[in-house]
Formats: sequence, C-alpha cells, structure tokens
Amino acid sequence: MVNASGRRRVGVAVVGLGGAVATTAVAGVELMRRGANSMSGLPLADVAVPGLAGYEDLVFGGWDVNGQSLAAAAAEHHVLNDNQLADTEDALSRVTPWKAVASSAFCRRVGGSNMREMRGHRAAIDAIISDIQQFKVANDLDDVVMINLASTERTPVEGEALRTADGFQRALDQDDPDIGPAMLYAAAAIEAGVAYGNFTPSVAADIPGLTELAERRGVPVAGKDGKTGQTLLKTVLAPALRARALHVDGWFSTNILGNRDGQALEDPDSLKSKLGTKGNVLDSILGYKVEDHLVDIRYYRPRGDDKEAWDNIDVSGFLGHRMQIKVNFLCKDSVLAAPLVLEIARVLDLARQRGEGGPQEQLSLFFKAPMTAGRRAPEHAFHRQERMLSDWLEGNAGR
Amino acid sequence: MVNASGRRRVGVAVVGLGGAVATTAVAGVELMRRGANSMSGLPLADVAVPGLAGYEDLVFGGWDVNGQSLAAAAAEHHVLNDNQLADTEDALSRVTPWKAVASSAFCRRVGGSNMREMRGHRAAIDAIISDIQQFKVANDLDDVVMINLASTERTPVEGEALRTADGFQRALDQDDPDIGPAMLYAAAAIEAGVAYGNFTPSVAADIPGLTELAERRGVPVAGKDGKTGQTLLKTVLAPALRARALHVDGWFSTNILGNRDGQALEDPDSLKSKLGTKGNVLDSILGYKVEDHLVDIRYYRPRGDDKEAWDNIDVSGFLGHRMQIKVNFLCKDSVLAAPLVLEIARVLDLARQRGEGGPQEQLSLFFKAPMTAGRRAPEHAFHRQERMLSDWLEGNAGR
Amino acid sequence: MVNASGRRRVGVAVVGLGGAVATTAVAGVELMRRGANSMSGLPLADVAVPGLAGYEDLVFGGWDVNGQSLAAAAAEHHVLNDNQLADTEDALSRVTPWKAVASSAFCRRVGGSNMREMRGHRAAIDAIISDIQQFKVANDLDDVVMINLASTERTPVEGEALRTADGFQRALDQDDPDIGPAMLYAAAAIEAGVAYGNFTPSVAADIPGLTELAERRGVPVAGKDGKTGQTLLKTVLAPALRARALHVDGWFSTNILGNRDGQALEDPDSLKSKLGTKGNVLDSILGYKVEDHLVDIRYYRPRGDDKEAWDNIDVSGFLGHRMQIKVNFLCKDSVLAAPLVLEIARVLDLARQRGEGGPQEQLSLFFKAPMTAGRRAPEHAFHRQERMLSDWLEGNAGR
Amino acid sequence: MVNASGRRRVGVAVVGLGGAVATTAVAGVELMRRGANSMSGLPLADVAVPGLAGYEDLVFGGWDVNGQSLAAAAAEHHVLNDNQLADTEDALSRVTPWKAVASSAFCRRVGGSNMREMRGHRAAIDAIISDIQQFKVANDLDDVVMINLASTERTPVEGEALRTADGFQRALDQDDPDIGPAMLYAAAAIEAGVAYGNFTPSVAADIPGLTELAERRGVPVAGKDGKTGQTLLKTVLAPALRARALHVDGWFSTNILGNRDGQALEDPDSLKSKLGTKGNVLDSILGYKVEDHLVDIRYYRPRGDDKEAWDNIDVSGFLGHRMQIKVNFLCKDSVLAAPLVLEIARVLDLARQRGEGGPQEQLSLFFKAPMTAGRRAPEHAFHRQERMLSDWLEGNAGR
Repeated sequence: MVNASGRRRVGVAVVGLGGAVATTAVAGVELMRRGANSMSGLPLADVAVPGLAGYEDLVFGGWDVNGQSLAAAAAEHHVLNDNQLADTEDALSRVTPWKAVASSAFCRRVGGSNMREMRGHRAAIDAIISDIQQFKVANDLDDVVMINLASTERTPVEGEALRTADGFQRALDQDDPDIGPAMLYAAAAIEAGVAYGNFTPSVAADIPGLTELAERRGVPVAGKDGKTGQTLLKTVLAPALRARALHVDGWFSTNILGNRDGQALEDPDSLKSKLGTKGNVLDSILGYKVEDHLVDIRYYRPRGDDKEAWDNIDVSGFLGHRMQIKVNFLCKDSVLAAPLVLEIARVLDLARQRGEGGPQEQLSLFFKAPMTAGRRAPEHAFHRQERMLSDWLEGNAGR
Repeated sequence: MVNASGRRRVGVAVVGLGGAVATTAVAGVELMRRGANSMSGLPLADVAVPGLAGYEDLVFGGWDVNGQSLAAAAAEHHVLNDNQLADTEDALSRVTPWKAVASSAFCRRVGGSNMREMRGHRAAIDAIISDIQQFKVANDLDDVVMINLASTERTPVEGEALRTADGFQRALDQDDPDIGPAMLYAAAAIEAGVAYGNFTPSVAADIPGLTELAERRGVPVAGKDGKTGQTLLKTVLAPALRARALHVDGWFSTNILGNRDGQALEDPDSLKSKLGTKGNVLDSILGYKVEDHLVDIRYYRPRGDDKEAWDNIDVSGFLGHRMQIKVNFLCKDSVLAAPLVLEIARVLDLARQRGEGGPQEQLSLFFKAPMTAGRRAPEHAFHRQERMLSDWLEGNAGR
Repeated sequence: MVNASGRRRVGVAVVGLGGAVATTAVAGVELMRRGANSMSGLPLADVAVPGLAGYEDLVFGGWDVNGQSLAAAAAEHHVLNDNQLADTEDALSRVTPWKAVASSAFCRRVGGSNMREMRGHRAAIDAIISDIQQFKVANDLDDVVMINLASTERTPVEGEALRTADGFQRALDQDDPDIGPAMLYAAAAIEAGVAYGNFTPSVAADIPGLTELAERRGVPVAGKDGKTGQTLLKTVLAPALRARALHVDGWFSTNILGNRDGQALEDPDSLKSKLGTKGNVLDSILGYKVEDHLVDIRYYRPRGDDKEAWDNIDVSGFLGHRMQIKVNFLCKDSVLAAPLVLEIARVLDLARQRGEGGPQEQLSLFFKAPMTAGRRAPEHAFHRQERMLSDWLEGNAGR
Repeated sequence: MVNASGRRRVGVAVVGLGGAVATTAVAGVELMRRGANSMSGLPLADVAVPGLAGYEDLVFGGWDVNGQSLAAAAAEHHVLNDNQLADTEDALSRVTPWKAVASSAFCRRVGGSNMREMRGHRAAIDAIISDIQQFKVANDLDDVVMINLASTERTPVEGEALRTADGFQRALDQDDPDIGPAMLYAAAAIEAGVAYGNFTPSVAADIPGLTELAERRGVPVAGKDGKTGQTLLKTVLAPALRARALHVDGWFSTNILGNRDGQALEDPDSLKSKLGTKGNVLDSILGYKVEDHLVDIRYYRPRGDDKEAWDNIDVSGFLGHRMQIKVNFLCKDSVLAAPLVLEIARVLDLARQRGEGGPQEQLSLFFKAPMTAGRRAPEHAFHRQERMLSDWLEGNAGR
C-alpha cells in the first residue's frame, strides 16, 4: 500500500490545474510541508483512519488550456496573499500543466492555447491515460486520483450517448459531438482504474454509461459540484426550518462573483448547468416544492475570487405569521473549495484501497448534487451527510 | 390515563398567562379547534406516539400580575391579526389570570395589580398548589403541567439557598430574599407532582435544591429559556462551521425588540440573566473559546413583538483567509415561541405518564440552556438535539 | 381658476386606475377627507403656494383593462389594512374604471376584459378625449390632469414614428404597430390640453413627436418612471460618494417584488424598458462610467406589493483601499408611489395654471428618468432635484 | 505666502501622530510624492483655489505617547498593504513623535511611555508651543496647523473651567484637574497663532474659553469628531427621508471596530463622549425628536482597523404603513479619515491666510458635531454642508 520510503504517495491529476481552486490547493499543501499552514478549513484534519493519505503525501499534476506555470497562474488569481505567493513560488513554478483536451463547443467563454489537437474521442481518451501513466511513473506514485476542476461546461443534449451505457460506447466510436471533454476525462480515469471526483457541475461520470462502467470495474467515482458557499448554508438551514415546521414560502438567492468561474457562467448554457445542480436541494430537504425558489448568479468583476451570496428566505410559522431570514455570505470561493478537493482526493484514494467501486455516497457532504448508487435520491441535509461520512470512515477503520 | 369522554385532558398552568407568548399559544389552540390554524410552526405535528396529548386536549389556566382577560391582553400584544383576534375573542375573554406571586425585587420593570399578598415563601407555595388543584377539579383534567412564561427575573445571589438542597429548604423557612418567584412556582409544581417547564432565563428548577427534589419525587422538569431566534440559528450554523473546520474568530450578535419582554431586559439585572443563558452555546458546540463573542439586546419600541437579530460571524479558513457571514432574522418572538410551549407541555405530560422524573434532556431542542441529569454539559448542536428528541419519542413508542 | 363653490376641483384621469398605486392614492385622499390619514409620505404637505390644489380637491377617474370597482381592486392588492379598506369601501365602490385602450402586443403579461375595441389610432385618441370631456363635465371640474400608472409596456421599435414629430403623425394615420397605448393616451392628453405625467417606464410623451407638440400647445408633460425605492436611494447615496471622492468600482442591485407590476416585468421586453430608465442614473451623478453596474428585478410572489431591494456597492478610497456598502430596503411600492402621484398631479395642475408647457423639469425629483427641455441631460442627484422643485414653487409664489 | 523655493510649505502638527489615521495620512502624502497614490478619497482633489496648499506641500510632525517611529507604528496598524508599507518605510522611519502631554485621568485605556513630565498646565502649554516653534524652524515652514487625532478622552466635568473664558484662565492657573490634555493642546495652538482642527470627540477648542480666544486672536478653529462612517451615511440619508416625508419611527445603529480607537471606547467615559457627538445629528436634520434612536459601539478585535456599521431604520409613510431600511457599511476607519485630515489641514491653512479666525463652519462637512460661530445650531445635512464648503472656497477664489 505504500512505497519504499514507507509513506504512501498519491498523485492528484487535476483537470483545470491552472485554475484558482487548484493552485490554492497545491500551494496549501506546499505551505503545510513548510509548516506555514494551519489546519483551518480542512474538515478531516483530525480524522485518524488507517490508509488515509496525509495531505503532504499528495503530489499534483494535471491539464489546463493555459500552459503557464502554477506560480504565474496563482499570481493572477489573487487568492494567496503576497507572503504565501512568495513562499510557494519555487515549488509552484516547477509545475506546468499538460496539454488539455478541451472544446469551445462545451465551454465558450474561457479559452487557451495549451490544447491537445483532437483526433477523435478514443484518441483523446488514450492520450489522457498516457498522461496519467507518465505522471505515475515519473513521480513514483502508489496510485492516482483524478479531480475535475475545469470551468463549467454547457449541459449536453440528452441523447442516446447520455442515456445508456451502450449508447455511450457507440457515441465514442462515432465521435458524437454530444460528448464533451468532462466525459472524456472521466472515461479515461475509469478505463485507467483511477478514482474520479467531479467538483464541477459539468456532466461527466454521472451518465449511466460511465457510472455503470465504474461499478463494473470497481473504480470509485464521486461528484458533483462542490458545495462551498450558498448551497452549503442552504443545506444547513433548511433542515432546521423543517425541524421547526417553519414553512418556506420563498427563497431568493443571488450571487456575485468575479473570477474565471464566474466569467464562464456568463455563457447561458454553462449557467444552466450550474443552476441545475443548485435547484433540487431545497425541495428534497423540505419535502415539498418551494414554488418561489429563485437562484441568480452574476459575473461581477470587482469581487475577483471573493464571492458573495445574499439569500432572502420567507417563512411562515404558527398561525400563518410571516418572518424573514436574510443571509449574506462574503466568502472566498477557492479558499472554501481547495481543502474540500484535498479531502475528496484522500477519501477516494481510501475507497480505492478498500476496493469500493462506483458512486461514493459517503462524499455527499462535499457536493451540491451527490452521486448515488442505483440512482436513488441523494441525501442533501448537511448534518446527515456529515454522519454518513463519519460512519463510513469509522465503520471501516477497524478492518 | 384518559377521562370519561375517552380523551386525555391536560391542563397547562402558565406563569405569565397574560403575556404575548401565552395568549398566542391559547389563541392558537382555540383556532385549531375551529379548524382555522395550519400546523405551521408545530415541530411535532406529524409525530404519532401513544399517550401524546393532542393540541386540542390542552386546557389553559394560569397566573399573571395583570388581571385583564386574555382577550384584552391579546389585543394589546399585537401578535394576532384582526381576524384571529375576532375569532378567538369569545374564548379568550372567558379566561382571566389568577392572582400572581411576584416580586419587584426580582423583576423591576414590569408590574401589575393582580398580585397575591405574600405572607412568606411556604404560604406562597401552598397558595400556588391550591390554585393548581382547583384548576384540575374545575376542568376535569387528567393531569396538569406548569410552564413558566413570566418576565425574566434578575439573577439571584449565589448563596446557600441556591447551592444545596438543604440550603434551599432552610431558605424557604426563613423567607430568604434570595429566593425569587420563579423558584417558588417551581417548588410548588414539584411538591404537587406537576411537571414543570421553564421557558424563561429565570433561575427556577435548575437549582440543586429543586432538581434533586424533582428526581426524588419523579417529577419531570425541563428548561431553560426557549430557543427561538438568534440562538436557534447559532446552534444550527455553528455545528456546520465546525464540520467545515472554519474557525470562528468572532461572533457579534445584536437584537432589537419592543415587547414587554424587551422592556424587562432594560433592567441590567434581568439582562444579565438573559445573556447568561445565551453565552455558552457557541464555545460548547465549537470546542474552543470564542474570545470575541458579543451579545447585545436592546429595547427598541418600533418593533413591538417583532424581534430582529443581526449577527456578524468572522471565520477564517484554508491558509488563514478571512470570511464573513451575516445573518439578519426578522422574526416574531411569540409566533416562534408559542408552538414550542405547546410541544414542551405535551412532551412533559408524556414523560410524566412514562414515569420519568428529573431533568428531561430530550427537550434540549427547545431550550437555550438545557437542563441535564447529573449536571453534565448539555448538548447544544441543533441537529443532535433533534435526534435526541426523536429517539426518545420513538424508542418509547413501542411500550 | 376655481369653481362656484370657491374651491378649485382638479380631475385626475388615471391610466391603470385599478392598479395598486392608483387605488392606494384614491383611498388615501378619501381617508384625508375623513381625517384618518396623516400627512406622512407627502413631500409637499407643508408647502403653501397660491394655486396649488389641496389633496382633497382631487377627483379621480380613469381607465383600466379590469372593470371591477376600486373597492374590489383595492381588496385584491393587499396594500390597505383591513380598517382602511372598510373605511373607504363605500367611496371606492362608487368608482369603476372606463374601458381601456390596451394592446397585448405591448404588455403581454397583464390582460383584462374591460377593453375598448380598437378601430385605429385616431379613433382611440378621440375616444380617450371624449372620456376626459365627460369626466370633466360630470364632475364639474376646473381642469384635468392625466397620469399614467398602467403596467410597463415593451420598448417599441426605434422607427420613424418615434424619432420625429412628422413621423409620429404619419404613423398615427397609418395605424403603425410601433405606436403603443401609452403614446396614444399621451397624444390624447396633449391634444385635449390636459397636463400629462408618466409614472411608468413606458415610452409615451418622451418621443419627439409628443414633446414638441406639448411645447407648441403649452401643455405641461412630465415623466418618467416614478422614483420610489432602490433608484431613490441610489440618487441619494451616489452624490455623497462623489463628494467624498469614493470611487464606485461596482454597484449590484437586485429587487424582488410580487405584485402585478412585477408580473408584467416577467416579460423580458417590459423588463428591458424598466432597466432602461434605471440604468443611466449612476454614471450621470458620478461623472464616470461604472462598468459593473448590474440591476436585476425578479418576480417573487411571497412579497405581494411589498418590494425588497438589496444593493451592494463596492467603493475604493484613499490609497486604493476597498470598502463595501450594502443597503437593504424593505419597502411597500404603492405606499411610496401613491403620494408622489398626488404631488405630480398637483404640480402639473399648477404648471398648467402658470402657463408653462412642455417638459416640467422641476418634477425631476419624482422620476427615475426625468424629461427635460431640449433633450438636455437630466439632473439625477436627489438633493439638487429637491432644490429645483422648491425654487420653482417659491420663485413663482410671488406672481 | 510662500517660501524661497516658490512653494508654500505647511507643517501639520498632529496630536496622536503614531495612530492609525495619522500614519495613514503621512504615508498617503509620501506615496503621492512618489506618484503611487491615486486621488481617491480626497474630496478636494479637483479644487483649484489660490492659496490652497498642495497635498505634497504638507510636512508632518507631532506628539504621541508611543515613541516608536511612524514606520513601526504603521506596521502595527495593518492599514497599509505590504507594498505600501515597503514603499514608505524609509520616509516614515525618519519621523519619530515628540513627547506627549497626556493624562490617564482623561483616557484610561491607552497608555505609553513617550510622555512629557507634567509640571502644571501653563508649563505644558509652553512646552507644546516650543515644540511647534522648533518644528517650524527646523523644516523651514511657512505656517503650521495643529490637528488632534489622539484617542478619545472622557467627557470632563461641566465646571467653571469649561463654561466661561475667565473660568478657563483661572483653571489653568490652578492646574484644575477638569482640564484635560486636548484642551491644553488647543490652548497652545491658539496662543501660538496656529490653526487648530479637532478630529476627535474630545472636548477641546469648543469650550467658550477657547472659542472666544480663537475669535479674539483671529485663529481658525474647527471640529469636532471626523464624520467618516455611520454618521456620514446618517446625514446623507436623513435629509432624503425628510424630503420624502417618511417619518423615522426609530433608528438603531450598531458599530463593531477593533483598533486602538475602539479599545479606548471600552472605557465607558470615553464612550460617552463619542455617543455625545453622534446623538444630535438625526433630530436636527429631521426637525423632530426620534425617540428610539439608539447607538451602540463595541470593541470587536477580529476587525482590527476595519470598522463595520449596521443600521436599521424604521420609517412610516403614506397611510401610516411601515417600511425598513438596513444599511451595512464595511469600512476602513483610517482610510476614510486620513484624507479628511489632509483637507481639514489645507482649508484651515487657507482660512488663516484669508485672516478668518474663530470657528470655521465651512468645514462642517467633515465633522459629526460641527463648531459654529456664536454657538448657533450646526448644519448637519450632508448636501447643505457640501454647498457651504464649495461656496466658501469659490466665493473667495477671486480675491
């Protein structure tokens, strides 16, 4: 389970390695190595379970349409402060993203030149697998996990390719344009036996053709769309409103954000994907349909990577009397997301060691739209998700 | 367990019957009888457990320093709307509070003329017990529960009377001025074998002398200080912040309210009691001391019974980066509190039937400072409290 | 200037008489007659200028696509409280809107059956004028003012009809579909010598063909789009930010509202009209372009006529340091708008008496997009608008 | 009027030179000299009036109880970012505060060792004057202005010393303990013919004994308490509420701040001074007493120099309907204050050149409690204050 040095080394192959979340995660691990990062923001920092890799045992590589080094990328994202940039510059300047498989048809707003020429879907998958193999060998890794952090793709057409396992295979053969890059990366991971986590709203391992394949091959998959800000609070507050029998008459959520992620969402098709993963949470927790549940996301440059959510919740209580709760979250998207990425990678690696393939429901805590086995309805309530994960970690700790 | 008509009839003897919370609760039950009240705001409306009294089986009586009928009181509180006032006028005008045992030394700001002349502590307790007996007989009740909804008293001096069971008995004999009205009511309830719930921050059944007595006599007691607004949200949010490892650097809470309750808190001594029950919640849930946890409460007349809380939470996450959450709760105090009072009364009555005496921890969900057996630290996290109650209700359902 | 009874009687012919704003205004005047309305919300209540009609001298009539009485309409809008509805029921039940000239091509979302069959633009204008004449005679009025309070129409095509006076006349003859109902009402008012105020964002008297006509005929016109909530605060705050040299890096404004007005704005074309009048205010006051000025409006039913605005303002100050101002306005649209309608009617009537035709810039204080003479840039800063009006009122008081 | 180099050089002698506001002002001017500071936050940056000193013509010196260099002080205050600290380190490290005249009896919470031994009031005044003279000579200054930026002192006893000019002179002779340091500095400035501005709430030149002296000697004085955050917005919003006839039923203001200024306000006596200058603003602008006007200030360390205000405004409008405005200002105290200090210094210097002594009302724009001639009621409305200043600047521009 571990390499010669006595410690497990786990590779994290990131799709979108140059982005704000990924560079923050990589820098964070580097700062931990240097003793300059507290454990703040790391939900599983105190968990001691055999087999769970240490944060410092994670080795990063990955793809990005922008070929600049992570040091240059991090400087552009304005997430790290000046000291943190300086302390990690050496380490980050040594990491340069591999050429990415991308498609402007799936994500219009964000482009780059560090792209692999596409000669068909199968060739793309082979190239991705080859990148992973090289990564593993070059870094003497015990295993590799793939995490998708790329910009949100548009929702694909709901054709044969997405609906059945066979349809997906045929669509691969025919270079079906309904298959987007996120699906190709996920397919490559599953084929290579590499656990896969999808931190974005893009359609990927959650199509039947890939979920079934992952189950058959025993490859852990998890997703999708990291639960960081507004939806996090929604899944914390809604269970309490239900427990107090306060009826939600309406819930208005608006978001302003100014990073690359926000820019991608200016494409109405990408926005639709995002709103899709945000939408069902509330009704699922409350047990009834909230007719007036509105979610807005606006690209607003003054904020950069700082993201702000404003929620207005209209509830009615005893005797039908009306009340309001307003929540204003001034958060930092990448600061919230990066540690979750580290935890997802560690848990996926542990699941792989434990031989558990297919959707990893115990990771629901970290996702807006958790993948489940057998397509059953996901658990959205935060505290119940928390218990699912701790049960999974503990229940298996004794093996 | 039930009377001749085949239904259990439970008396609720309320200390502070003319207040906004009590009149709202009484009117709410009356409107249920008339089919004009939804189940909104009633946390246990869907629970079906043998022995649990129906809302409509509750019969109200109680004491108040203001002797006007509940109809007149309700009209002054401006909680019910005009239709609700009209629909309940007949029923509420038939209820007039009994003469109260009160002490201006314990609650300066709120006075009234409907007071029983005090001839010593023992005599006061006897008079309260006699009121309860008459209430039971006159209404053909199967049992009675006492709920304290009176204005917050000042924190009493921490003398012998409060520290030991024997000390309390001696203090009763000596008419010790450190014993306030809330303690006398609680003592009367326990002596009369009547379950007691304290919805206020006043010191009452939570002193050793009374908790021990309740345990010995097998009388259920619960409290204290109803968890309705700001603290409710605090105990919902804080566990999630902990689960995400977001460190709370500071939490500033301010409240404005304009009802009689708020006026009582203009007395710095009463305010101190209130702040006391609010204070420990956060540290207990987070597992560390939040140095900058500030709580302000201000009497602000424009709001009447509408209460507003504004919270600012400073957290730091990954790499030490700072974020803020601001929560603004425009709530209605009595609308939130009244249904909890009904649930507390029903659960206390059920506990009495089940023969469980002493502090009822399963009611922690409804209190800011839950009473526990053996003085162990209370559970403050909302979702764990919720589970304690449902376990208690279900676990016993099969008996 | 006055009628036989010694008091001036001014008719207010309202387009959209059954709406929330109009019924609130009519009820408000009725309550003043009964001594049951304070002067709150009436900006010119304390102004004493010869010729300015009293609030109680206003007589209301008008058109609406919904033919129900104002009493029935007011009950639906939920603006007045139960007492106010009861006190005005008699008076309001006696007012029934005249048949309206409307066009589903210009305002899709709101319909009704109380519509006049259209036989061409000229015929529509004649019919409107005839309604006004009858109104005047039947009520023994000294003069009539027309106010547009109808739902927002879509922005019309920018063709010949809108660009020149001659083009508009030709377009009338040809029943050009680019001419919407609001323009027809305005044209009728000007032709009838009746002062016209446009409280909506619809295109009406502000097209050259009508502004020029109003100037030639000496008919006062004013508009457009009443400044009640978010834009009001914007024009109050922005001048102060400029005075303190705080640079506005971005201003995000979102609105939720649930009345008929909000429903009309679900039509993207109507929304575009609304956003148009809101958009220029900020740049004009600040003297530079705010790149990130975003305005959202969402139809959100739980609010009914209560409207809520949330603004986030990002400013940078000394040494480039960034700060934020957040404003949350929980307002009542009709309560803010109705008194302004009364003031606009009174000032337009006074302008007519003073012989001042064309755009009435002194009314800028009440509009989001003030009409100006000679198409010069309007003054948007609230305090300068306030002074323009008081100068106009006073400067002419001595005549 | 100018020195040999052809440019006027104006000394600014600051009481409290090591504080956050002062160091920010000094660094800001240094960065302007280096071309690294925009004109953001400087209200009079665009004003061109003969005699008005340039920002870069200001030379700083002053007193502080803490004797460290301004570079060390600035690093502690965490107002400047790392780049700004680095760029100004050389310049700021060359400035070290002179020994201060201070009194723990007047400001308990903040202490230091860089204090001049007190040998009576007259001696203290002489020492201050001597410091000013040396400053002037050493820097070849054309003139000097004194600005008080020291921590808020407690409100002194309202005895003879404060009530009359003669009483003050006698109190000086008798070393009356009712005379605090701020008064001694102001007295020294006036005696030395140096214009004096009080940016703090401390009692200083606003006592009759000093105001009269300033008038007699023709020395300009101005104050007091810089209007930066919450009160600024109050004086911007309140005039608009009045103009719209929206009645203010209540205004609740709370503040959290964590800098040295906030710490000083933990002393209830200093807090009282602060609340005093904040209190009258609202009633004065509205023309009636707001019964429920509450102002809270809390020392809350997580914020450091960042200051946050939350205001809740309850207004009633037409037909008595109630609305709410909530304003949340996340500001940076020193960033807002420092540029105002520069403007006050420049305008005071100009007033001195113009021969205008006594209270300088045209500076009302910058103060919470403006000093006026003849003790008449000050103007608080922001936009009228703005006009007073521009009139004063322009009206005299032609001389």
